[in-house]
Amino acid sequence: MFHHVKDLQFDARVTRPDPRFANLLLEQFGGGNGELKAAMQYFVQAFGCRRAYPEQYDLLMDIATEEFSHLEIVGATITMLLDGVNGELKDAAEGNLVAQMGNGSAKKKDVIGMAMDNPRFLLESGGGPLVTDSVGVPWTGAFVNANGDLTVDLRSNIGAETRAKIIYERLLQFTDDPHVQDSLRFLMTREIAHFQQFSAALSTIEPNFPPGILQGDLRFTHTYFNMSAGEDARGPWNKGKGPWEKGEQWEYVEDPVAQVRETAGQAEKAIEGHQRDEKAVAAAERELAAQRSGEVKSASPAGEQAWSDFETSDD
Amino acid sequence: MFHHVKDLQFDARVTRPDPRFANLLLEQFGGGNGELKAAMQYFVQAFGCRRAYPEQYDLLMDIATEEFSHLEIVGATITMLLDGVNGELKDAAEGNLVAQMGNGSAKKKDVIGMAMDNPRFLLESGGGPLVTDSVGVPWTGAFVNANGDLTVDLRSNIGAETRAKIIYERLLQFTDDPHVQDSLRFLMTREIAHFQQFSAALSTIEPNFPPGILQGDLRFTHTYFNMSAGEDARGPWNKGKGPWEKGEQWEYVEDPVAQVRETAGQAEKAIEGHQRDEKAVAAAERELAAQRSGEVKSASPAGEQAWSDFETSDD
Amino acid sequence: MFHHVKDLQFDARVTRPDPRFANLLLEQFGGGNGELKAAMQYFVQAFGCRRAYPEQYDLLMDIATEEFSHLEIVGATITMLLDGVNGELKDAAEGNLVAQMGNGSAKKKDVIGMAMDNPRFLLESGGGPLVTDSVGVPWTGAFVNANGDLTVDLRSNIGAETRAKIIYERLLQFTDDPHVQDSLRFLMTREIAHFQQFSAALSTIEPNFPPGILQGDLRFTHTYFNMSAGEDARGPWNKGKGPWEKGEQWEYVEDPVAQVRETAGQAEKAIEGHQRDEKAVAAAERELAAQRSGEVKSASPAGEQAWSDFETSDD
Amino acid sequence: MFHHVKDLQFDARVTRPDPRFANLLLEQFGGGNGELKAAMQYFVQAFGCRRAYPEQYDLLMDIATEEFSHLEIVGATITMLLDGVNGELKDAAEGNLVAQMGNGSAKKKDVIGMAMDNPRFLLESGGGPLVTDSVGVPWTGAFVNANGDLTVDLRSNIGAETRAKIIYERLLQFTDDPHVQDSLRFLMTREIAHFQQFSAALSTIEPNFPPGILQGDLRFTHTYFNMSAGEDARGPWNKGKGPWEKGEQWEYVEDPVAQVRETAGQAEKAIEGHQRDEKAVAAAERELAAQRSGEVKSASPAGEQAWSDFETSDD
Amino acid sequence: MFHHVKDLQFDARVTRPDPRFANLLLEQFGGGNGELKAAMQYFVQAFGCRRAYPEQYDLLMDIATEEFSHLEIVGATITMLLDGVNGELKDAAEGNLVAQMGNGSAKKKDVIGMAMDNPRFLLESGGGPLVTDSVGVPWTGAFVNANGDLTVDLRSNIGAETRAKIIYERLLQFTDDPHVQDSLRFLMTREIAHFQQFSAALSTIEPNFPPGILQGDLRFTHTYFNMSAGEDARGPWNKGKGPWEKGEQWEYVEDPVAQVRETAGQAEKAIEGHQRDEKAVAAAERELAAQRSGEVKSASPAGEQAWSDFETSDD
Amino acid sequence: MFHHVKDLQFDARVTRPDPRFANLLLEQFGGGNGELKAAMQYFVQAFGCRRAYPEQYDLLMDIATEEFSHLEIVGATITMLLDGVNGELKDAAEGNLVAQMGNGSAKKKDVIGMAMDNPRFLLESGGGPLVTDSVGVPWTGAFVNANGDLTVDLRSNIGAETRAKIIYERLLQFTDDPHVQDSLRFLMTREIAHFQQFSAALSTIEPNFPPGILQGDLRFTHTYFNMSAGEDARGPWNKGKGPWEKGEQWEYVEDPVAQVRETAGQAEKAIEGHQRDEKAVAAAERELAAQRSGEVKSASPAGEQAWSDFETSDD
Repeated sequence: MFHHVKDLQFDARVTRPDPRFANLLLEQFGGGNGELKAAMQYFVQAFGCRRAYPEQYDLLMDIATEEFSHLEIVGATITMLLDGVNGELKDAAEGNLVAQMGNGSAKKKDVIGMAMDNPRFLLESGGGPLVTDSVGVPWTGAFVNANGDLTVDLRSNIGAETRAKIIYERLLQFTDDPHVQDSLRFLMTREIAHFQQFSAALSTIEPNFPPGILQGDLRFTHTYFNMSAGEDARGPWNKGKGPWEKGEQWEYVEDPVAQVRETAGQAEKAIEGHQRDEKAVAAAERELAAQRSGEVKSASPAGEQAWSDFETSDD
Repeated sequence: MFHHVKDLQFDARVTRPDPRFANLLLEQFGGGNGELKAAMQYFVQAFGCRRAYPEQYDLLMDIATEEFSHLEIVGATITMLLDGVNGELKDAAEGNLVAQMGNGSAKKKDVIGMAMDNPRFLLESGGGPLVTDSVGVPWTGAFVNANGDLTVDLRSNIGAETRAKIIYERLLQFTDDPHVQDSLRFLMTREIAHFQQFSAALSTIEPNFPPGILQGDLRFTHTYFNMSAGEDARGPWNKGKGPWEKGEQWEYVEDPVAQVRETAGQAEKAIEGHQRDEKAVAAAERELAAQRSGEVKSASPAGEQAWSDFETSDD
Repeated sequence: MFHHVKDLQFDARVTRPDPRFANLLLEQFGGGNGELKAAMQYFVQAFGCRRAYPEQYDLLMDIATEEFSHLEIVGATITMLLDGVNGELKDAAEGNLVAQMGNGSAKKKDVIGMAMDNPRFLLESGGGPLVTDSVGVPWTGAFVNANGDLTVDLRSNIGAETRAKIIYERLLQFTDDPHVQDSLRFLMTREIAHFQQFSAALSTIEPNFPPGILQGDLRFTHTYFNMSAGEDARGPWNKGKGPWEKGEQWEYVEDPVAQVRETAGQAEKAIEGHQRDEKAVAAAERELAAQRSGEVKSASPAGEQAWSDFETSDD
Repeated sequence: MFHHVKDLQFDARVTRPDPRFANLLLEQFGGGNGELKAAMQYFVQAFGCRRAYPEQYDLLMDIATEEFSHLEIVGATITMLLDGVNGELKDAAEGNLVAQMGNGSAKKKDVIGMAMDNPRFLLESGGGPLVTDSVGVPWTGAFVNANGDLTVDLRSNIGAETRAKIIYERLLQFTDDPHVQDSLRFLMTREIAHFQQFSAALSTIEPNFPPGILQGDLRFTHTYFNMSAGEDARGPWNKGKGPWEKGEQWEYVEDPVAQVRETAGQAEKAIEGHQRDEKAVAAAERELAAQRSGEVKSASPAGEQAWSDFETSDD
Repeated sequence: MFHHVKDLQFDARVTRPDPRFANLLLEQFGGGNGELKAAMQYFVQAFGCRRAYPEQYDLLMDIATEEFSHLEIVGATITMLLDGVNGELKDAAEGNLVAQMGNGSAKKKDVIGMAMDNPRFLLESGGGPLVTDSVGVPWTGAFVNANGDLTVDLRSNIGAETRAKIIYERLLQFTDDPHVQDSLRFLMTREIAHFQQFSAALSTIEPNFPPGILQGDLRFTHTYFNMSAGEDARGPWNKGKGPWEKGEQWEYVEDPVAQVRETAGQAEKAIEGHQRDEKAVAAAERELAAQRSGEVKSASPAGEQAWSDFETSDD
Repeated sequence: MFHHVKDLQFDARVTRPDPRFANLLLEQFGGGNGELKAAMQYFVQAFGCRRAYPEQYDLLMDIATEEFSHLEIVGATITMLLDGVNGELKDAAEGNLVAQMGNGSAKKKDVIGMAMDNPRFLLESGGGPLVTDSVGVPWTGAFVNANGDLTVDLRSNIGAETRAKIIYERLLQFTDDPHVQDSLRFLMTREIAHFQQFSAALSTIEPNFPPGILQGDLRFTHTYFNMSAGEDARGPWNKGKGPWEKGEQWEYVEDPVAQVRETAGQAEKAIEGHQRDEKAVAAAERELAAQRSGEVKSASPAGEQAWSDFETSDD
């Protein structure tokens, strides 16, 4: 269960209202690389790994809960940056904001300016956050990657933290409010820390590549197809040893169209660049399948389960 | 900030796996009337009312946090109902699920059946919740209503709790697992309690109707247009006193097309059914505008704010 | 069936074109609290209640049809506010709008300004409404709440009218065109009237709380969980009698984490604050189930139905 | 304004409930080629052409209104096909549907079967239509094409009617209820009639090709690029005279990669296949721009407009 | 398979960066009438017609591939128009963009201006295209119409090309960069050429109207319902011979509400305006069904298929 | 520009039609981890890195083009698995599919079964792929991550390939057709190869962590907050040296609520676990900012650019 404490995890402050920056910051409230996405992604992944990986379950719930706390920091900052907007909107009897612009306050002009940038932000929210990104597109569950395999999920998280970090870095370019900069720097830094935490967790699962159980078809794992003609580049991704083990190397297919025709649509393609054989692959798959499916086997033959003891029998 | 405790708010259990009901239950995880929607709606509304209504802010944060805790109960139940699915998927080396159906276990058949009902649930989640509804449509921020006016937001919440309640009632028809029924009954009951809490909170704000500041145009507040011809019904919604104050009553327009033409498109329409006059309306608007915009005025003339003291000066 | 009359329900006019306000007003054409949402919500609900509640069916169809007529008023106003835009776009041979800005007309500048605010509005619509909100996000069926239970639907509608009202109130702040203000005031006022009509209709169904058939679990209906620690507030929503009947009252759980542990995850929680017992609850459910399911029983045992007589046998 | 009459435009009937076909039929209620899409497309287009093409405005409003009436027929049919579902759901006190399946009625089995096919349809709607397609994806404003140029809009409509027709043809394969077949045949036939009406309307605007004002660059209008190598086909779309005027013909580029290099990325490409020259093109553009932008010029120099006289000055 | 060549199909250039126009141009990258939509639509249609119409399959793949090449032109142009934005964002150590605006370069001001117009474009993309339209709404598969019947698909394509053409025409109004104008004119012209290609392809299929197999119900194909009262217009779409064959003509229903009542909801409606009878209709349907379903019959009785020979037996 | 060759990159075959598996496979055509997502992600990223990283641009275009070729393999396989469906639908004159089920072929039953699983797949596509996932939710541009920083994008790609691999592994469990298994194994293997290619490319950029320019705030990079109370786990992600350099280590905050209060909301938090100081951080940021922003500086001072030479001056 969750519990809430009215202190923020970071003492967020603003020097002055700034509706336009509030609009930009909305990206990290309801955008595709924002705090809600992160919180929900780790929270949802946690269910799937509770039985087999109770330690990493703890990690995922720790970070998910921290991201919900960051979501609150972002929402509070947006609200403070919009301070006054709600009051202007409620001052409805005195006439309208447009008519007053001639002798109007700077605040009124800000409200109107913001209405033009993101009308729905103003009209619908009345001066608070919305569950949308910075242009007003609603947050979607399609942002969340949770696939029930921890070697997959942790890599999704490494990517997610990377993207969140760069968005905060860019947001830092668009405000000169030192208080807001402090909060953004805190939030950005935590993405770096989480990146390291997820990387460390991935290293505790062996083997973790390829993700899942099945190994690749030996004919195609070491092959590079040169699909884009022109100035072709060679580097460790398509030349020499690459990331492969001793004695293995990349196979470079210069002309993929010709190769398709020569190999009867790959059917007659030979294995190249490998040390391993198909027997070794099959053995590895059998062993891994037994181990990994065993890890999620229930301790309760009858099937009845409580969440409080939803862990593997031997834990 | 949020804090998480590994106990669930309700001791959720399942008697046996049931992938098909897991699929139905997903509606309350990522559907339009589910727990995530409720949690996010109240959480987002809370920011907007922190300054003017710190007491109701506490109410909103209490219920928002409870809804996040309910989301966890729903997710845990779905995961337990899917127990075994992840293991079957990881048993990848032994051949494929389809081939084994002839001599396969009931569990295998369940996995395949579920794959046909909601393929993405299985293929993508690997046996855990997704941030989608029961047919696989992603949750969207468009579900969340938060409009920065508490007399509006509380009514949105009353509607939301009502809908959530009926969905749980229907889900109860589709499982005979007594443990799952217990959890659903708990969750359903809390929607009833929240309904009452929001209604009580609405009653503490006066006036609360019409919502906002502006009063209606006296010519049109008491009018009912009979737009659908055929068997016309009369009831308290279009006949007699209705909800109006002493001496007031509904005006019934039998033939709206004729009425438009007779009133020059409403321009010449008379006020009917009223006791109030335009002067009284204008006075009410001025008074309410002053009061409500005053409530959200900042205590800090310089503009600098911390979230920890983001409340009106006189609180 | 629907019929259309070329007169508007309100004689909408504009004093001058104003593309930027047209953009804001789009919120009520294709936004989440706009006229299309309202029209579709009541129209869809009407199908579900035709058999059991033919009188309220008439109410829903009256208001749905009025909302379609309001949608037309909003669309006509947007079109008039954009007057000239389409002509500028079709003046394509003379060069381009950007090049002419030096000696260009104010109208040209308006077109360009609008292109920057909401480019798709201009590029795609060519100067008319779009089925999107004010930032260009398409209308979605997810806005519509229709749940096949009139005590639920009418509460959804009360919430919906409330939100629509506040959006019109805010829009009124952003235009000083008296004609447009008149139209907005008419539309806003009708939301107030519909609110009252739906409230009156709800009062004709008894009992209407809790919505649906099933009553709450007596252990949890009167309980308030204090999930957010810090400055806790007490009010009629968590203290004293609240909305309860004589002799009943709120139960306040100060420390929900401790409570979960003390009650074995609620399993051992006692009933508090109630007068009713479980037997009374079961009787109420049986009675209500019989009554409400009976109301929707078909008059035609053979199953053949025409829409024209799709009503309960005894109506 | 719209008016509603409680008679359907077609006397829709069903022989017996059929929840599964109701689910399929939902495609034409809230799907991408369904009645709501058609109604909204023509309705939105109508605003844009009211000034310049008042006669076609009448056509668009006639068909839009008919499509709203068809939407009602589809919704009524879905409701009748689901007859009994709502009653089952409200029979909530007697236990649950699953438990009763052993000795349950066929109707109960149908409800459960439907719950598995499209759970949200049942859980959320309670037995009526939803504003989604047949798999539960919400209707979106992105379906609507309305571009403020009648030669464009009418072609969009011809495409839309074509698609709607084929969906009804397919639906007819999935029901053997003669009443439902009658309704579907009526609805399908009207798409054919509308196709002809839109085609006839397009023929009244001259010139109508290319749509809009600007003519093509003479170097590229008659060129066909053979971008997909293998078994290349030749036909009237890339060989001989094609749709061109006397003396003109298609230019076939056998090897587009070579062509790009030979023409310096098209910069040095020659005009081929044409009779027209650039001077003629420029003259046509000037003339058409003057004419078409003139058609939408306002009759009111001051800018004030009422919708009731929103037509060109010389009409 | 696809192959890529690093030359663009058109030598796209820009005279100077222009972030605001880049934003507008995004409409044709990820918008509803843009290049990705066109490419995907024809690509997806191609699968469905490969067996029955291998020649038109070639046409669809040629144009689909060209549209992917156009997508690249649009993306490259957007990237060049944003030249410098990425560098400004990476100059993160020197302070922030806002603080430097006083003595900042014009480029910095452009970056900030663009951030306000479409914040997500800047924050998320860092200065390249996004798969969204010009307001930031993501591209959706709902844009794609592919219905497995070539007489339907080609008409959808004619509509799609028409819309794409008008969007390019409008974009041409918002830039005075001659290089960009050249590219836009090329892209616009290709839509005109594709329109002609699809029209020519449609003419090779006979009969192609009505689309699909089933003919209309003779009572309703020639009928026009006057659903919108007021200034009614008559034209070739509802008067006289219209598009009909010799001896046939439109039937005009002046008062559709009366007509419904007089015909018992159409049940007693007579056939009007026709030469054909029901027997002829049934014969036409039988013949067409046999022919068209025969065209897609597999050549392989055993069912095993390779894509390379997925064509009808007699081709 | 793209070029298409009618051979597939892999000789895809099916042993027999299997509409239900076609439905599952749709996940990799239009789902969130499918081929279209991958193709578009790398294609869009390529624009952004063309100037600074021309070698990696080649890598991205090679893999993007290969993914488009894989999309074609998936679409062709779906089409072959649906062989016969289109023919059944076109056999429209003989009566309807439902009526023939008594004496109908297995094929007819398959068509009906499929209609129930994913009605839109059948009704709309007529037997070919759709741009949706396996439950019918349209593909969305929100799936695509492209952020204009190669150290970010390559990590997004590593995550994306990981997810795509696991989906193919799961799909392999649901078919026993050896031809389809071969194709799936090929496609799955290529995800493994691309993973290695992207990892190798990431290693060529130094430094690549943290992504972007700005370094973390030293107070927060090494801190772990224990936000989820209960069974707390310790591992390399929150204990000891972790991924840190010599002499550095994790700081573990046991009670984050207390910590917030003790540090005045982090304001007074000390740096712990570090060797670096703030001066070193600032220097690193300055150096990196100069280098990375320099890499994207244009070679053309005047601003005019052609895509063909859109690379850094010194390349």
